[in-house]
Amino acid sequence: MNLLPKQVRLVEVGPRDGLQNEPQPISIADKVRLIDDLSAAGLSYIEAGSFVSPKWVPQMAGSAEVFGQITRKPGVTYAALTPNLKGLEAAIAAGVKEVAVFGAASEAFSQKNINCSIANSLARFAPLMEVARAHDIRVRGYVSCVLGCPYEGSVAPDKVAEVARELYAMGCYEISLGDTIGTGTPGKTRTLIETVSRAVPREHLAGHFHDTYGQAMANIYASLLEGIAVFDSSIAGLGGCPYVQGASGNVASEDVLYLLNGLDIETGVDLDMLISAGERISQLLGRANGSRVARTRHSGTDTTTSRGMS
Amino acid sequence: MNLLPKQVRLVEVGPRDGLQNEPQPISIADKVRLIDDLSAAGLSYIEAGSFVSPKWVPQMAGSAEVFGQITRKPGVTYAALTPNLKGLEAAIAAGVKEVAVFGAASEAFSQKNINCSIANSLARFAPLMEVARAHDIRVRGYVSCVLGCPYEGSVAPDKVAEVARELYAMGCYEISLGDTIGTGTPGKTRTLIETVSRAVPREHLAGHFHDTYGQAMANIYASLLEGIAVFDSSIAGLGGCPYVQGASGNVASEDVLYLLNGLDIETGVDLDMLISAGERISQLLGRANGSRVARTRHSGTDTTTSRGMS
Repeated sequence: MNLLPKQVRLVEVGPRDGLQNEPQPISIADKVRLIDDLSAAGLSYIEAGSFVSPKWVPQMAGSAEVFGQITRKPGVTYAALTPNLKGLEAAIAAGVKEVAVFGAASEAFSQKNINCSIANSLARFAPLMEVARAHDIRVRGYVSCVLGCPYEGSVAPDKVAEVARELYAMGCYEISLGDTIGTGTPGKTRTLIETVSRAVPREHLAGHFHDTYGQAMANIYASLLEGIAVFDSSIAGLGGCPYVQGASGNVASEDVLYLLNGLDIETGVDLDMLISAGERISQLLGRANGSRVARTRHSGTDTTTSRGMS
Repeated sequence: MNLLPKQVRLVEVGPRDGLQNEPQPISIADKVRLIDDLSAAGLSYIEAGSFVSPKWVPQMAGSAEVFGQITRKPGVTYAALTPNLKGLEAAIAAGVKEVAVFGAASEAFSQKNINCSIANSLARFAPLMEVARAHDIRVRGYVSCVLGCPYEGSVAPDKVAEVARELYAMGCYEISLGDTIGTGTPGKTRTLIETVSRAVPREHLAGHFHDTYGQAMANIYASLLEGIAVFDSSIAGLGGCPYVQGASGNVASEDVLYLLNGLDIETGVDLDMLISAGERISQLLGRANGSRVARTRHSGTDTTTSRGMS
C-alpha cells in the first residue's frame, strides 16, 4: 500500500468559493460568525472573502468589513481571493496577509471566463505579485479545469503542469489544482499529480475537488496516495448544493474530515464543531446540508463517534 | 500505482435492497419495468426480489410474480434473497436460478436482527444450501457490518474473515462484504480485504458499500486497488435517500459506473440508459435521485459525454 501523509491541512473555502456560489448573499455579521465558527473548530486556513466588484459578485460585498470584524485566532490564515492589483490593494487596506489568484488550464475556459488567453491572464498577475512581495503577503495560486473543461472537454496534464509551473515561478507558494467541473476520476487524478509534480514539488501542491459527479472523495483518496497533503473543501458543501442549477459541487469539509479521521491522518479539526458550524450556515441559507456526515448525524441515524469506528 | 481490474461486474441491488428500504411499496408492473430497464442498460446481474413474509417486508410482496413477468435477457442473472429454506423453496417454485443468503460479522447485530448467534444463523443455512445444490442453484453470501456495527462499534477483520470462510465453505460461490452502516474508510477497507482474502480468494469477494458518510466511492476505489472486481450498487441510490430517516445509504450505480468508465474498466453497462432507468424509478417514487451523475445530467449542467472526459 502506498504511504499516506501523516498530517493534512484543510483549506476551508466555504466562506468564499462556497458563499459566492449560493444564490442569496448573507450579512456581514453572519459571515463573521461562520468564519469564527470555522476557526474555533480548528481549521488553520480559511478563505474568508474576495476583493472583487460587488457588481459582479454581490455575495462577496463587504469582505473588507468581514476581515475587520472576525476574531483572529493565532495560527490561523485568513485569506482573500484577489483577481487583480486593485483587489490586492483593497485587501491590503483591509489587513489581509494572504491572498489567492486564479489561472485556468484551458484556453477556451480562460477566453470565455475572463476574455483573455492563459498567458495574458498570468502576465496580468505580475504587478500584483510584485506588490504582494513588497508587503510580505503570501500568494496562493489556483489552477482551474485541471481534469476537464466545459468547453474543451479533456485537458492535457502537461498544460496543467505548464500553468502550475508559471504560477509557482511567479511566486505562488502553493498551487491548488481545481477539478472545476468535477469530471475527474482517480486514475486521471494520479496521472495529473505525477505530471504536475515534475513542474512543482508535491509538497507545494493542493487538491481542490468538486463532487458534481460523485468522484471527489475517491479523487482525494487517490491524491493522498500520491502524497498530496493539502485539500480545499467547503463547509456543508456550500456552493455545491446538488439541487441548485449550475452548482459548483464543492466537496463537503465534514466528509473529507471523516475520511482523514478514518485514515488516522491528523488535521487538528474537531468534527463535531465542524458539523455544528455547517448546520448553522445551512439553516441560515435555508438549504439542505451538503455533507453526508452531517445529514446522517442530523437524521439521528448516526451510530458512530466523531472519530469514526476505530 | 496498483493494478486495477480490467473488468468489473456490477451487481444491481436496487430492485431488492433498494426498494426494500423505500417507504412505499410499488406495483409488480413497476418492478418488472425497472428490472427490464436495468437489463436493457447492460447490467448482467440484478437482485430482483426477496422471498420473505410480506408481513415483515411489504415492499417485497409479489416477488414470485415479478420473476414470472420479467423479460429474461440471455446472460443476465436474476437473483433473489432467500433468508431460509421456506424462502428458497418459494424461489425455486418461481423459477429462480440464483439466490443470496445473509450472515452478520457482528454478534450484537445478529442477536438484535435475527435473534440468534452468528454460528446459529449460519447453521440454519445448511438445509438451504443442500436443497440449492440439489436444484443446481447458485448461492451468493452477504456478510453485513464488515466495517462497523451500530451496536458493537468496530468489527475485527478476523471476525469478518471467519464468517466469510464459513459461507464459502458451505458453498457460497461469492461473498459480498457489506459496510452496512457506511462507516468504513479506505485504509480499513484495504486491511479488511487483505485479511478476508486469506480466508476466501479475492476473485470470490465482492464489495458492498453504503454512502451514509460519503465514503463509498473512496472505499470502492480502495477495493479496486486491492483487486476486487465485483461491486454491489443501487440504481439512483435507491434505499439510500439521504433525506429519509434511517436510510441505508446504498451507493448509486450511476456514480460507480462513472468511476469505472473514468478508470477505463469494462462493465458492459451503458451510462445513459442507466441514468434513464434511475430517473424513471425516482420519479415514480417521488424521491430525489440519489445519483450525483444523474442529478447533474438532469440539472442541465452536465458538460460531458457518458464516458466522462477522456
